[in-house]
Amino acid sequence: MRVLLTIEYDGTNYVGWQRQDNGLAIQQVVEETVAQAQGQSVLFASGRTDAGVHAWGQKAHFDSRCTLPPEKWAFFLNDRLPEDIRIVKSEGVDRDFHARYWAKDKTYEYVIHHSRVSSAIRRNHCCFVPYELDFCAMKAAAGLLTGEHDFGAFASTRSNKQITVRKIHEVGFSQEGETIRFVVRGNGFLHNMVRIMAGSIVDIGRGRIAPDAFVRAFASRDRNELGCTAPARGLFLKDVTFYDRAQMGERAAPKRLEERG
Amino acid sequence: MRVLLTIEYDGTNYVGWQRQDNGLAIQQVVEETVAQAQGQSVLFASGRTDAGVHAWGQKAHFDSRCTLPPEKWAFFLNDRLPEDIRIVKSEGVDRDFHARYWAKDKTYEYVIHHSRVSSAIRRNHCCFVPYELDFCAMKAAAGLLTGEHDFGAFASTRSNKQITVRKIHEVGFSQEGETIRFVVRGNGFLHNMVRIMAGSIVDIGRGRIAPDAFVRAFASRDRNELGCTAPARGLFLKDVTFYDRAQMGERAAPKRLEERG
Repeated sequence: MRVLLTIEYDGTNYVGWQRQDNGLAIQQVVEETVAQAQGQSVLFASGRTDAGVHAWGQKAHFDSRCTLPPEKWAFFLNDRLPEDIRIVKSEGVDRDFHARYWAKDKTYEYVIHHSRVSSAIRRNHCCFVPYELDFCAMKAAAGLLTGEHDFGAFASTRSNKQITVRKIHEVGFSQEGETIRFVVRGNGFLHNMVRIMAGSIVDIGRGRIAPDAFVRAFASRDRNELGCTAPARGLFLKDVTFYDRAQMGERAAPKRLEERG
Repeated sequence: MRVLLTIEYDGTNYVGWQRQDNGLAIQQVVEETVAQAQGQSVLFASGRTDAGVHAWGQKAHFDSRCTLPPEKWAFFLNDRLPEDIRIVKSEGVDRDFHARYWAKDKTYEYVIHHSRVSSAIRRNHCCFVPYELDFCAMKAAAGLLTGEHDFGAFASTRSNKQITVRKIHEVGFSQEGETIRFVVRGNGFLHNMVRIMAGSIVDIGRGRIAPDAFVRAFASRDRNELGCTAPARGLFLKDVTFYDRAQMGERAAPKRLEERG
Protein backbone atom coordinates (compact mmCIF):
# COMPACT_ATOMS: atom_id res chain seq x y z
CA MET A 1 0.00 0.00 0.00
CA ARG A 2 1.43 3.38 -1.04
CA VAL A 3 1.01 6.02 1.69
CA LEU A 4 1.11 9.79 1.20
CA LEU A 5 2.24 11.92 4.15
CA THR A 6 1.51 15.62 4.66
CA ILE A 7 4.41 16.86 6.78
CA GLU A 8 4.88 20.06 8.77
CA TYR A 9 8.41 20.83 9.90
CA ASP A 10 10.51 23.51 11.48
CA GLY A 11 13.66 23.45 9.34
CA THR A 12 15.81 25.34 11.85
CA ASN A 13 17.72 22.36 13.16
CA TYR A 14 18.08 20.42 9.90
CA VAL A 15 20.32 20.49 6.83
CA GLY A 16 17.16 20.44 4.70
CA TRP A 17 14.76 17.80 3.44
CA GLN A 18 17.29 15.61 1.62
CA ARG A 19 19.87 13.34 3.25
CA GLN A 20 23.32 14.95 3.34
CA ASP A 21 26.71 14.17 4.83
CA ASN A 22 26.95 17.36 6.88
CA GLY A 23 24.07 16.90 9.31
CA LEU A 24 20.61 15.62 10.03
CA ALA A 25 18.01 15.78 7.25
CA ILE A 26 14.24 15.71 7.71
CA GLN A 27 13.93 12.89 5.17
CA GLN A 28 16.36 10.80 7.21
CA VAL A 29 14.47 11.34 10.48
CA VAL A 30 11.12 10.39 8.94
CA GLU A 31 12.59 7.39 7.08
CA GLU A 32 14.20 6.09 10.26
CA THR A 33 10.90 6.48 12.10
CA VAL A 34 9.00 4.61 9.37
CA ALA A 35 11.70 1.92 9.66
CA GLN A 36 10.71 1.32 13.28
CA ALA A 37 7.55 -0.31 11.93
CA GLN A 38 8.74 -2.10 8.80
CA GLY A 39 12.50 -1.90 8.24
CA GLN A 40 14.31 0.31 5.77
CA SER A 41 11.99 2.51 3.67
CA VAL A 42 12.56 5.30 1.17
CA LEU A 43 10.48 8.49 1.17
CA PHE A 44 9.86 10.39 -2.07
CA ALA A 45 9.01 14.05 -1.51
CA SER A 46 7.35 16.51 -3.88
CA GLY A 47 10.53 18.54 -3.73
CA ARG A 48 13.54 19.28 -1.61
CA THR A 49 13.74 22.19 0.80
CA ASP A 50 17.07 23.71 1.79
CA ALA A 51 18.60 23.97 5.25
CA GLY A 52 16.52 26.24 7.51
CA VAL A 53 13.47 26.26 5.20
CA HIS A 54 10.18 25.24 6.83
CA ALA A 55 7.11 23.42 5.60
CA TRP A 56 3.47 23.61 6.58
CA GLY A 57 2.55 20.98 4.00
CA GLN A 58 5.42 19.04 2.44
CA LYS A 59 4.14 15.89 0.72
CA ALA A 60 6.05 12.61 0.55
CA HIS A 61 5.09 9.01 -0.21
CA PHE A 62 6.46 5.61 0.75
CA ASP A 63 5.34 2.02 0.42
CA SER A 64 3.84 0.53 3.54
CA ARG A 65 4.71 -3.13 4.00
CA CYS A 66 2.86 -3.68 7.27
CA THR A 67 -0.78 -4.05 8.24
CA LEU A 68 -1.11 -0.55 9.69
CA PRO A 69 -4.01 1.22 7.89
CA PRO A 70 -2.74 4.29 5.93
CA GLU A 71 -4.54 6.84 8.13
CA LYS A 72 -2.97 5.32 11.28
CA TRP A 73 0.59 6.00 10.11
CA ALA A 74 0.23 9.63 11.26
CA PHE A 75 -0.37 8.49 14.85
CA PHE A 76 2.44 5.93 14.77
CA LEU A 77 4.95 8.45 13.41
CA ASN A 78 3.89 11.42 15.57
CA ASP A 79 4.37 9.28 18.68
CA ARG A 80 8.01 8.71 17.69
CA LEU A 81 9.11 11.79 15.71
CA PRO A 82 10.76 14.83 17.34
CA GLU A 83 8.41 17.74 18.08
CA ASP A 84 9.75 19.81 15.16
CA ILE A 85 8.48 17.28 12.58
CA ARG A 86 4.75 16.46 12.53
CA ILE A 87 2.66 14.29 10.26
CA VAL A 88 -0.45 16.37 9.62
CA LYS A 89 -2.11 13.60 7.64
CA SER A 90 -1.43 10.11 6.23
CA GLU A 91 -3.59 8.60 3.50
CA GLY A 92 -3.60 5.72 1.04
CA VAL A 93 -2.91 6.55 -2.61
CA ASP A 94 -2.77 4.59 -5.88
CA ARG A 95 0.10 2.18 -6.39
CA ASP A 96 1.60 4.33 -9.20
CA PHE A 97 1.16 7.70 -7.49
CA HIS A 98 4.43 9.60 -7.10
CA ALA A 99 4.75 12.70 -4.89
CA ARG A 100 7.31 14.25 -7.23
CA TYR A 101 6.06 13.30 -10.70
CA TRP A 102 2.38 13.84 -9.93
CA ALA A 103 2.97 17.25 -8.31
CA LYS A 104 0.94 19.91 -10.12
CA ASP A 105 1.36 23.15 -8.17
CA LYS A 106 3.32 24.26 -5.17
CA THR A 107 2.66 27.23 -2.93
CA TYR A 108 5.45 28.93 -1.03
CA GLU A 109 5.20 31.76 1.46
CA TYR A 110 8.03 34.12 2.33
CA VAL A 111 7.64 36.03 5.61
CA ILE A 112 9.47 39.29 6.31
CA HIS A 113 9.66 41.00 9.70
CA HIS A 114 9.91 44.72 8.99
CA SER A 115 11.03 46.44 12.16
CA ARG A 116 13.81 48.44 13.80
CA VAL A 117 14.80 45.52 16.03
CA SER A 118 14.80 41.82 15.13
CA SER A 119 12.39 39.56 17.00
CA ALA A 120 13.54 37.12 19.68
CA ILE A 121 10.35 35.07 19.39
CA ARG A 122 9.99 35.06 15.60
CA ARG A 123 13.72 34.87 14.81
CA ASN A 124 13.70 31.43 13.13
CA HIS A 125 10.51 31.96 11.14
CA CYS A 126 10.99 35.20 9.24
CA CYS A 127 13.59 37.36 7.57
CA PHE A 128 14.37 40.55 9.49
CA VAL A 129 14.44 43.74 7.39
CA PRO A 130 15.20 47.00 9.24
CA TYR A 131 15.25 49.29 6.18
CA GLU A 132 12.67 51.77 4.93
CA LEU A 133 10.61 50.10 2.24
CA ASP A 134 8.37 51.31 -0.58
CA PHE A 135 5.47 48.86 -0.27
CA CYS A 136 3.78 50.07 -3.47
CA ALA A 137 6.90 49.38 -5.53
CA MET A 138 7.24 45.94 -3.88
CA LYS A 139 3.63 45.00 -4.56
CA ALA A 140 3.86 46.16 -8.17
CA ALA A 141 7.07 44.18 -8.70
CA ALA A 142 5.53 41.03 -7.18
CA GLY A 143 2.65 41.37 -9.65
CA LEU A 144 5.08 41.17 -12.58
CA LEU A 145 5.95 37.58 -11.64
CA THR A 146 2.65 35.97 -12.63
CA GLY A 147 2.45 34.13 -15.92
CA GLU A 148 4.77 31.87 -17.86
CA HIS A 149 8.33 33.21 -17.98
CA ASP A 150 11.90 32.08 -18.38
CA PHE A 151 13.10 32.18 -14.77
CA GLY A 152 16.71 31.35 -15.67
CA ALA A 153 17.91 34.46 -13.81
CA PHE A 154 16.01 33.33 -10.70
CA ALA A 155 18.03 30.16 -10.12
CA SER A 156 20.95 29.63 -7.82
CA THR A 157 24.16 29.83 -9.86
CA ARG A 158 24.84 26.29 -8.59
CA SER A 159 21.75 25.09 -10.48
CA ASN A 160 22.38 23.28 -13.76
CA LYS A 161 18.79 23.21 -14.94
CA GLN A 162 18.33 23.21 -18.73
CA ILE A 163 14.65 24.10 -18.89
CA THR A 164 14.01 27.24 -16.88
CA VAL A 165 10.52 28.21 -18.05
CA ARG A 166 7.97 28.00 -15.24
CA LYS A 167 4.41 29.18 -14.84
CA ILE A 168 3.44 31.26 -11.81
CA HIS A 169 -0.32 31.08 -11.35
CA GLU A 170 -0.74 33.45 -8.47
CA VAL A 171 1.25 35.93 -6.41
CA GLY A 172 0.12 37.54 -3.16
CA PHE A 173 1.81 40.44 -1.41
CA SER A 174 0.41 41.78 1.85
CA GLN A 175 1.62 43.94 4.70
CA GLU A 176 0.07 44.08 8.14
CA GLY A 177 1.84 45.75 11.03
CA GLU A 178 5.44 44.58 11.01
CA THR A 179 4.76 41.51 8.86
CA ILE A 180 5.08 41.31 5.10
CA ARG A 181 3.93 38.13 3.36
CA PHE A 182 4.82 37.14 -0.17
CA VAL A 183 2.93 34.08 -1.42
CA VAL A 184 3.62 32.46 -4.76
CA ARG A 185 1.90 29.50 -6.39
CA GLY A 186 3.35 27.92 -9.52
CA ASN A 187 3.86 24.71 -11.47
CA GLY A 188 7.53 24.48 -10.55
CA PHE A 189 10.38 26.32 -8.90
CA LEU A 190 14.09 26.44 -9.64
CA HIS A 191 16.64 26.15 -6.85
CA ASN A 192 16.40 29.27 -4.63
CA MET A 193 13.78 30.78 -6.94
CA VAL A 194 11.39 32.00 -4.22
CA ARG A 195 14.25 33.30 -2.07
CA ILE A 196 15.67 35.25 -5.05
CA MET A 197 12.17 36.63 -5.74
CA ALA A 198 11.76 37.68 -2.08
CA GLY A 199 15.27 39.15 -1.82
CA SER A 200 14.73 41.10 -5.04
CA ILE A 201 11.36 42.44 -3.89
CA VAL A 202 13.06 43.72 -0.72
CA ASP A 203 15.86 45.25 -2.78
CA ILE A 204 13.25 46.93 -5.01
CA GLY A 205 11.53 48.23 -1.85
CA ARG A 206 14.86 49.65 -0.66
CA GLY A 207 15.54 51.25 -4.05
CA ARG A 208 18.66 49.15 -4.58
CA ILE A 209 17.47 47.66 -7.84
CA ALA A 210 15.06 48.99 -10.48
CA PRO A 211 11.30 48.34 -10.19
CA ASP A 212 11.35 46.58 -13.56
CA ALA A 213 14.18 44.23 -12.59
CA PHE A 214 11.96 41.16 -13.04
CA VAL A 215 10.99 42.09 -16.61
CA ARG A 216 14.63 42.68 -17.52
CA ALA A 217 15.67 39.41 -15.88
CA PHE A 218 13.09 37.44 -17.91
CA ALA A 219 14.68 38.84 -21.08
CA SER A 220 18.36 38.69 -20.13
CA ARG A 221 18.31 35.55 -17.96
CA ASP A 222 21.01 37.37 -15.98
CA ARG A 223 21.14 36.69 -12.23
CA ASN A 224 22.87 40.07 -11.79
CA GLU A 225 19.68 41.93 -12.69
CA LEU A 226 18.18 40.65 -9.46
CA GLY A 227 18.67 41.22 -5.73
CA CYS A 228 20.11 39.06 -3.01
CA THR A 229 18.87 35.58 -2.10
CA ALA A 230 16.71 36.08 1.00
CA PRO A 231 17.59 33.88 4.01
CA ALA A 232 16.10 30.40 4.34
CA ARG A 233 14.46 31.07 7.70
CA GLY A 234 11.68 33.18 6.08
CA LEU A 235 10.59 30.52 3.59
CA PHE A 236 7.71 28.08 4.05
CA LEU A 237 6.49 25.37 1.67
CA LYS A 238 2.77 25.81 2.28
CA ASP A 239 1.04 23.36 0.01
CA VAL A 240 1.44 20.93 -2.88
CA THR A 241 -1.41 19.86 -5.15
CA PHE A 242 -1.38 16.84 -7.45
CA TYR A 243 -2.68 15.82 -10.86
CA ASP A 244 -5.45 13.28 -10.72
CA ARG A 245 -5.37 10.02 -12.64
CA ALA A 246 -7.16 11.41 -15.71
CA GLN A 247 -4.78 14.38 -15.90
CA MET A 248 -1.73 12.13 -15.51
CA GLY A 249 -2.96 10.02 -18.44
CA GLU A 250 -3.03 13.11 -20.63
CA ARG A 251 0.56 13.96 -19.79
CA ALA A 252 3.06 12.61 -22.32
CA ALA A 253 5.82 11.93 -19.83
CA PRO A 254 6.31 12.16 -16.07
CA LYS A 255 7.28 15.60 -14.85
CA ARG A 256 10.97 15.49 -14.06
CA LEU A 257 11.83 18.92 -12.79
CA GLU A 258 14.10 19.35 -9.85
CA GLU A 259 12.00 21.24 -7.36
CA ARG A 260 13.59 23.44 -4.78
CA GLY A 261 12.08 26.75 -3.68
CA MET B 1 21.55 57.56 34.96
CA ARG B 2 18.77 55.02 35.45
CA VAL B 3 17.93 53.16 32.24
CA LEU B 4 14.68 51.31 31.50
CA LEU B 5 14.83 48.41 29.04
CA THR B 6 11.92 46.93 27.09
CA ILE B 7 12.90 43.33 26.49
CA GLU B 8 11.51 40.70 24.13
CA TYR B 9 12.57 37.12 24.79
CA ASP B 10 11.88 33.58 23.77
CA GLY B 11 11.80 31.77 27.09
CA THR B 12 12.23 28.29 25.60
CA ASN B 13 15.90 27.86 26.47
CA TYR B 14 15.88 29.58 29.88
CA VAL B 15 14.94 28.71 33.46
CA GLY B 16 12.90 31.93 33.55
CA TRP B 17 13.63 35.58 34.17
CA GLN B 18 15.23 35.24 37.60
CA ARG B 19 18.68 33.81 38.34
CA GLN B 20 18.52 30.21 39.53
CA ASP B 21 20.96 27.44 40.31
CA ASN B 22 19.54 24.97 37.80
CA GLY B 23 20.25 26.76 34.53
CA LEU B 24 20.58 29.95 32.59
CA ALA B 25 18.22 32.83 33.42
CA ILE B 26 17.34 35.73 31.13
CA GLN B 27 18.21 38.21 33.90
CA GLN B 28 21.68 36.70 34.17
CA VAL B 29 22.34 36.91 30.43
CA VAL B 30 21.27 40.56 30.23
CA GLU B 31 23.18 41.50 33.42
CA GLU B 32 26.34 39.88 32.12
CA THR B 33 25.96 41.75 28.83
CA VAL B 34 25.47 45.09 30.63
CA ALA B 35 28.59 44.19 32.62
CA GLN B 36 30.63 44.16 29.41
CA ALA B 37 30.26 47.94 29.38
CA GLN B 38 30.44 48.86 33.05
CA GLY B 39 31.17 45.95 35.38
CA GLN B 40 28.69 44.13 37.59
CA SER B 41 25.13 45.52 37.37
CA VAL B 42 21.79 44.42 38.79
CA LEU B 43 18.61 44.46 36.72
CA PHE B 44 15.23 44.98 38.40
CA ALA B 45 12.33 43.64 36.36
CA SER B 46 8.62 44.46 36.63
CA GLY B 47 8.05 40.84 37.50
CA ARG B 48 9.48 37.40 37.10
CA THR B 49 8.46 35.00 34.38
CA ASP B 50 8.77 31.24 34.81
CA ALA B 51 10.82 28.80 32.74
CA GLY B 52 9.54 28.62 29.17
CA VAL B 53 7.37 31.76 29.44
CA HIS B 54 8.01 34.41 26.77
CA ALA B 55 7.88 38.20 26.77
CA TRP B 56 7.11 40.71 24.04
CA GLY B 57 7.61 43.59 26.47
CA GLN B 58 9.25 42.74 29.79
CA LYS B 59 10.48 45.91 31.53
CA ALA B 60 13.62 46.11 33.66
CA HIS B 61 15.81 48.95 34.90
CA PHE B 62 19.46 49.29 35.91
CA ASP B 63 21.82 52.13 36.73
CA SER B 64 24.16 53.12 33.95
CA ARG B 65 27.58 54.15 35.17
CA CYS B 66 29.12 54.88 31.79
CA THR B 67 28.79 57.69 29.28
CA LEU B 68 26.65 55.70 26.83
CA PRO B 69 23.41 57.68 26.23
CA PRO B 70 20.35 55.71 27.48
CA GLU B 71 18.87 55.18 24.01
CA LYS B 72 22.18 53.71 22.77
CA TRP B 73 22.14 50.88 25.30
CA ALA B 74 19.70 48.96 23.04
CA PHE B 75 22.27 48.90 20.22
CA PHE B 76 25.15 47.99 22.54
CA LEU B 77 23.21 45.11 24.10
CA ASN B 78 21.61 43.76 20.90
CA ASP B 79 25.07 43.51 19.33
CA ARG B 80 26.14 41.19 22.16
CA LEU B 81 23.00 39.35 23.34
CA PRO B 82 21.92 35.97 21.93
CA GLU B 83 19.23 36.16 19.22
CA ASP B 84 16.51 34.92 21.59
CA ILE B 85 16.80 38.03 23.80
CA ARG B 86 16.28 41.45 22.17
CA ILE B 87 16.21 44.94 23.64
CA VAL B 88 13.25 46.57 21.89
CA LYS B 89 13.95 49.94 23.52
CA SER B 90 16.22 51.61 26.07
CA GLU B 91 15.36 54.97 27.63
CA GLY B 92 16.40 57.21 30.50
CA VAL B 93 14.08 57.37 33.52
CA ASP B 94 14.01 59.27 36.82
CA ARG B 95 16.56 58.35 39.46
CA ASP B 96 13.87 56.94 41.80
CA PHE B 97 11.93 55.05 39.14
CA HIS B 98 11.59 51.34 39.90
CA ALA B 99 10.36 48.82 37.31
CA ARG B 100 8.70 46.71 39.98
CA TYR B 101 7.30 49.27 42.44
CA TRP B 102 6.11 51.69 39.77
CA ALA B 103 4.40 48.98 37.70
CA LYS B 104 0.71 49.81 37.28
CA ASP B 105 -0.74 47.24 34.90
CA LYS B 106 0.51 44.17 33.16
CA THR B 107 -0.92 42.49 30.09
CA TYR B 108 -0.45 38.78 29.48
CA GLU B 109 -1.51 36.77 26.47
CA TYR B 110 -2.08 33.03 26.48
CA VAL B 111 -2.04 31.35 23.06
CA ILE B 112 -3.75 28.00 22.41
CA HIS B 113 -3.31 25.92 19.26
CA HIS B 114 -6.57 24.03 18.79
CA SER B 115 -5.98 21.25 16.30
CA ARG B 116 -5.89 17.49 15.78
CA VAL B 117 -2.09 17.51 15.44
CA SER B 118 0.41 19.67 17.31
CA SER B 119 2.42 22.17 15.28
CA ALA B 120 6.10 21.65 14.48
CA ILE B 121 6.62 25.33 13.73
CA ARG B 122 4.58 26.82 16.58
CA ARG B 123 5.47 24.18 19.17
CA ASN B 124 7.36 26.47 21.57
CA HIS B 125 4.92 29.38 21.39
CA CYS B 126 1.52 27.94 22.14
CA CYS B 127 -0.27 25.28 24.10
CA PHE B 128 -1.60 22.43 21.98
CA VAL B 129 -5.21 21.40 22.71
CA PRO B 130 -6.64 18.55 20.58
CA TYR B 131 -10.01 18.29 22.35
CA GLU B 132 -13.43 19.48 21.23
CA LEU B 133 -14.12 22.83 22.86
CA ASP B 134 -17.23 24.89 23.58
CA PHE B 135 -16.00 28.36 22.60
CA CYS B 136 -19.13 30.10 23.92
CA ALA B 137 -18.68 28.60 27.36
CA MET B 138 -14.98 29.56 27.31
CA LYS B 139 -15.69 33.14 26.31
CA ALA B 140 -18.40 33.50 28.93
CA ALA B 141 -16.10 32.10 31.64
CA ALA B 142 -13.28 34.47 30.62
CA GLY B 143 -15.69 37.37 31.01
CA LEU B 144 -16.29 36.44 34.67
CA LEU B 145 -12.66 37.27 35.49
CA THR B 146 -12.92 41.04 35.10
CA GLY B 147 -13.19 43.19 38.20
CA GLU B 148 -11.65 43.06 41.68
CA HIS B 149 -11.68 39.57 43.14
CA ASP B 150 -9.87 37.41 45.65
CA PHE B 151 -7.73 35.28 43.33
CA GLY B 152 -6.42 33.09 46.17
CA ALA B 153 -7.56 29.95 44.33
CA PHE B 154 -5.66 31.09 41.23
CA ALA B 155 -2.20 30.90 42.78
CA SER B 156 0.31 28.11 42.60
CA THR B 157 0.11 26.07 45.79
CA ARG B 158 3.82 26.92 46.23
CA SER B 159 2.84 30.60 46.54
CA ASN B 160 2.80 32.03 50.07
CA LYS B 161 1.13 35.32 49.17
CA GLN B 162 -0.95 36.89 51.99
CA ILE B 163 -2.88 39.43 49.96
CA THR B 164 -4.57 37.71 47.05
CA VAL B 165 -7.02 40.38 45.90
CA ARG B 166 -6.23 41.66 42.41
CA LYS B 167 -8.07 43.78 39.91
CA ILE B 168 -8.48 42.58 36.33
CA HIS B 169 -9.27 45.54 34.09
CA GLU B 170 -9.82 43.77 30.84
CA VAL B 171 -10.13 40.27 29.42
CA GLY B 172 -10.09 39.35 25.74
CA PHE B 173 -10.99 35.97 24.29
CA SER B 174 -10.82 35.39 20.56
CA GLN B 175 -10.71 32.43 18.22
CA GLU B 176 -9.55 32.51 14.63
CA GLY B 177 -8.85 29.35 12.69
CA GLU B 178 -6.80 27.04 14.92
CA THR B 179 -5.66 29.83 17.26
CA ILE B 180 -7.33 30.86 20.49
CA ARG B 181 -6.02 33.95 22.29
CA PHE B 182 -6.77 34.83 25.88
CA VAL B 183 -5.55 38.30 26.88
CA VAL B 184 -5.75 39.63 30.42
CA ARG B 185 -4.76 43.04 31.78
CA GLY B 186 -4.65 43.65 35.50
CA ASN B 187 -2.92 45.46 38.33
CA GLY B 188 -1.12 42.36 39.54
CA PHE B 189 -0.88 38.63 39.09
CA LEU B 190 -0.19 35.81 41.54
CA HIS B 191 2.27 33.04 40.71
CA ASN B 192 0.83 30.95 37.82
CA MET B 193 -2.40 33.01 37.87
CA VAL B 194 -2.71 33.45 34.09
CA ARG B 195 -1.77 29.83 33.42
CA ILE B 196 -4.40 28.63 35.91
CA MET B 197 -6.96 30.94 34.24
CA ALA B 198 -6.04 29.60 30.79
CA GLY B 199 -5.98 25.97 31.90
CA SER B 200 -9.37 26.39 33.60
CA ILE B 201 -10.90 28.05 30.53
CA VAL B 202 -9.77 25.05 28.46
CA ASP B 203 -11.19 22.65 31.06
CA ILE B 204 -14.50 24.59 30.97
CA GLY B 205 -14.42 24.34 27.16
CA ARG B 206 -13.93 20.57 27.46
CA GLY B 207 -16.74 20.25 30.01
CA ARG B 208 -14.36 18.98 32.69
CA ILE B 209 -15.23 21.73 35.17
CA ALA B 210 -18.38 23.80 35.61
CA PRO B 211 -18.88 27.06 33.66
CA ASP B 212 -19.18 28.98 36.95
CA ALA B 213 -15.91 27.59 38.34
CA PHE B 214 -14.38 31.07 38.55
CA VAL B 215 -17.25 32.50 40.61
CA ARG B 216 -17.06 29.56 43.03
CA ALA B 217 -13.29 29.87 43.28
CA PHE B 218 -13.55 33.57 44.20
CA ALA B 219 -15.80 32.56 47.11
CA SER B 220 -14.05 29.41 48.28
CA ARG B 221 -10.42 30.38 47.51
CA ASP B 222 -10.04 26.66 46.73
CA ARG B 223 -7.54 25.73 44.01
CA ASN B 224 -9.49 22.49 43.47
CA GLU B 225 -12.44 24.39 41.98
CA LEU B 226 -10.20 25.23 39.03
CA GLY B 227 -8.60 23.39 36.13
CA CYS B 228 -5.04 22.49 35.35
CA THR B 229 -2.18 24.96 35.10
CA ALA B 230 -1.67 25.49 31.37
CA PRO B 231 1.92 24.95 30.11
CA ALA B 232 4.42 27.82 30.18
CA ARG B 233 5.11 27.76 26.43
CA GLY B 234 1.73 29.40 25.64
CA LEU B 235 2.25 32.41 27.93
CA PHE B 236 3.54 35.83 26.83
CA LEU B 237 4.12 38.92 28.98
CA LYS B 238 2.91 41.48 26.44
CA ASP B 239 3.20 44.82 28.14
CA VAL B 240 3.78 46.65 31.42
CA THR B 241 2.58 50.18 32.12
CA PHE B 242 3.83 52.41 34.93
CA TYR B 243 2.50 55.03 37.33
CA ASP B 244 3.75 58.51 36.59
CA ARG B 245 5.42 60.71 39.22
CA ALA B 246 2.17 62.37 40.32
CA GLN B 247 0.41 59.02 40.75
CA MET B 248 3.36 57.59 42.70
CA GLY B 249 3.13 60.55 45.11
CA GLU B 250 -0.50 59.66 45.84
CA ARG B 251 0.38 56.10 46.73
CA ALA B 252 0.94 55.57 50.44
CA ALA B 253 3.62 52.92 50.12
CA PRO B 254 5.51 51.26 47.29
CA LYS B 255 3.69 48.37 45.75
CA ARG B 256 5.35 45.20 46.99
CA LEU B 257 3.53 42.38 45.34
CA GLU B 258 5.39 39.44 43.99
CA GLU B 259 4.48 39.40 40.35
CA ARG B 260 4.54 36.23 38.36
CA GLY B 261 2.01 35.39 35.64
